[in-house]
Amino acid sequence: MAKVIMKGAEVAAAMKEKLVREVEDLKARGIEPTMDIVRVGAKPEDLAYERGARKRLEGIGIRLVVTELPEDIDQKHFEEEFSKVNDDPKINGIMLFRPLPKHLDEEPVDRMIDPGKDMDCMSPVNIAKVFSGDETGFAPCTPEGVMEMLNHYGIQLKGKRVTIVGRSMVVGKPLAMLMLKKHATITICHTRTADLAGTCRNAEIVVAAAGKAGMITADMVSEGAVVADVGINVGADGKMCGDVDYENVEPKASYISPVPGGCGSVTSSVLAKHVVIAAGRQNG
Amino acid sequence: MAKVIMKGAEVAAAMKEKLVREVEDLKARGIEPTMDIVRVGAKPEDLAYERGARKRLEGIGIRLVVTELPEDIDQKHFEEEFSKVNDDPKINGIMLFRPLPKHLDEEPVDRMIDPGKDMDCMSPVNIAKVFSGDETGFAPCTPEGVMEMLNHYGIQLKGKRVTIVGRSMVVGKPLAMLMLKKHATITICHTRTADLAGTCRNAEIVVAAAGKAGMITADMVSEGAVVADVGINVGADGKMCGDVDYENVEPKASYISPVPGGCGSVTSSVLAKHVVIAAGRQNG
Repeated sequence: MAKVIMKGAEVAAAMKEKLVREVEDLKARGIEPTMDIVRVGAKPEDLAYERGARKRLEGIGIRLVVTELPEDIDQKHFEEEFSKVNDDPKINGIMLFRPLPKHLDEEPVDRMIDPGKDMDCMSPVNIAKVFSGDETGFAPCTPEGVMEMLNHYGIQLKGKRVTIVGRSMVVGKPLAMLMLKKHATITICHTRTADLAGTCRNAEIVVAAAGKAGMITADMVSEGAVVADVGINVGADGKMCGDVDYENVEPKASYISPVPGGCGSVTSSVLAKHVVIAAGRQNG
Repeated sequence: MAKVIMKGAEVAAAMKEKLVREVEDLKARGIEPTMDIVRVGAKPEDLAYERGARKRLEGIGIRLVVTELPEDIDQKHFEEEFSKVNDDPKINGIMLFRPLPKHLDEEPVDRMIDPGKDMDCMSPVNIAKVFSGDETGFAPCTPEGVMEMLNHYGIQLKGKRVTIVGRSMVVGKPLAMLMLKKHATITICHTRTADLAGTCRNAEIVVAAAGKAGMITADMVSEGAVVADVGINVGADGKMCGDVDYENVEPKASYISPVPGGCGSVTSSVLAKHVVIAAGRQNG
């Protein structure tokens, strides 16, 4: 049996305690940390994320405003509306829900957004900072949530062999850079990796971020490894599941995160942390 | 004995043949591909690089102009002068010699430079593109030179185990991203890696980019591995050498690049390639 089940709720609770105090300090100085969600249309998955984010942010004392734009807005008006939010000194952080409808081009707003207000790493300035290891940039929330989780459970990265399965710009690649900054030795695997099982077995820490239900099986994990599962899939039984065959991997792992209730539950806490940092910086 | 010594001059010659034709095509359309070196002061190493770049670029038919600025120029005038070069429609590519003197801040010009004229990846836009695998960005010349070399000698990357020793923003990290794009499985090592020898032995391709003379010894390379040496050091004997103990590693390798005469000799050809691409794009 795994020594420790890494629970997102525990990490989020610890982060909340610290953030609530920081928000109180800001409010005592007359600053109300505020985030703006920019949402084009009203897709059910966007609304679900929004509800979760609202609950988390408001629970910490952060104000959330939503700028909802019509689904058929044209590029010019979209950029104008985005620019208004970007220029509003009362807004400390911005999160644009992506992907945008197909008729809209995201690139102009990626370049326009104030990097200091960019809460989920859409600006090239923040992407470049994450790549170069400059911690003044805001990393994407999901990989930073993995770092928060490992840190919470006291898992050291320095000198460790880490295998990351998945090379996306939302998880795999930025996580590799964040872990490299902490002096881990990083191997990045993907669908074309010749010996995925062997490469995972060689790791002291395995991060699954490939988006394929049950792909990390027990034979791919060495005894005592740390396993963080960032996958969010719907299994054959219709239930939400990760990338790890949890039932069979759990007994071999020393630390393991479940899905649901694992890494995904930390993401909105990282978002809150970014808003608090941004509000502090924007007010000296 | 290594099957093949990978020689920078051979790669550069093949690249030149293609680039000379492309420059002729541009000139037939009235376009003279032009690069501007922006140099603050006149450090001997900058002048040495400039001579090499001039020889390579002019040999291909590319015009090189140099904007030399006084070493004691202040930030305001430096940015003004840089801006003039950046806005000049006759200049297709820009290379700023770095590091700048200590009293100057590079960040404003990193953000100012037209990404389409940025020949050696100083703009966050190009850094972000390299990170995300968007090939419309200009990668740093040195790691792209390694890719040119491996490609020239027919070395496939798809599915291969590659170990890169070194995590700098000029070689290790961008090279990892370029190779990941070609579907290699990448391990990034560094000074804190616990078992560097074992990690290198596990690789089919080893890239040495740590900047330490002779650190890659024969026991760290598996029989038949490909070894690319990006190091440039001065050895105990006062001679230029790479990161690889060439004499002892060469007999084990299938392909190996020497220093001098290896990867470093390809860098200025990549620079020329970038100028030709930029000149083509800027003229439709």
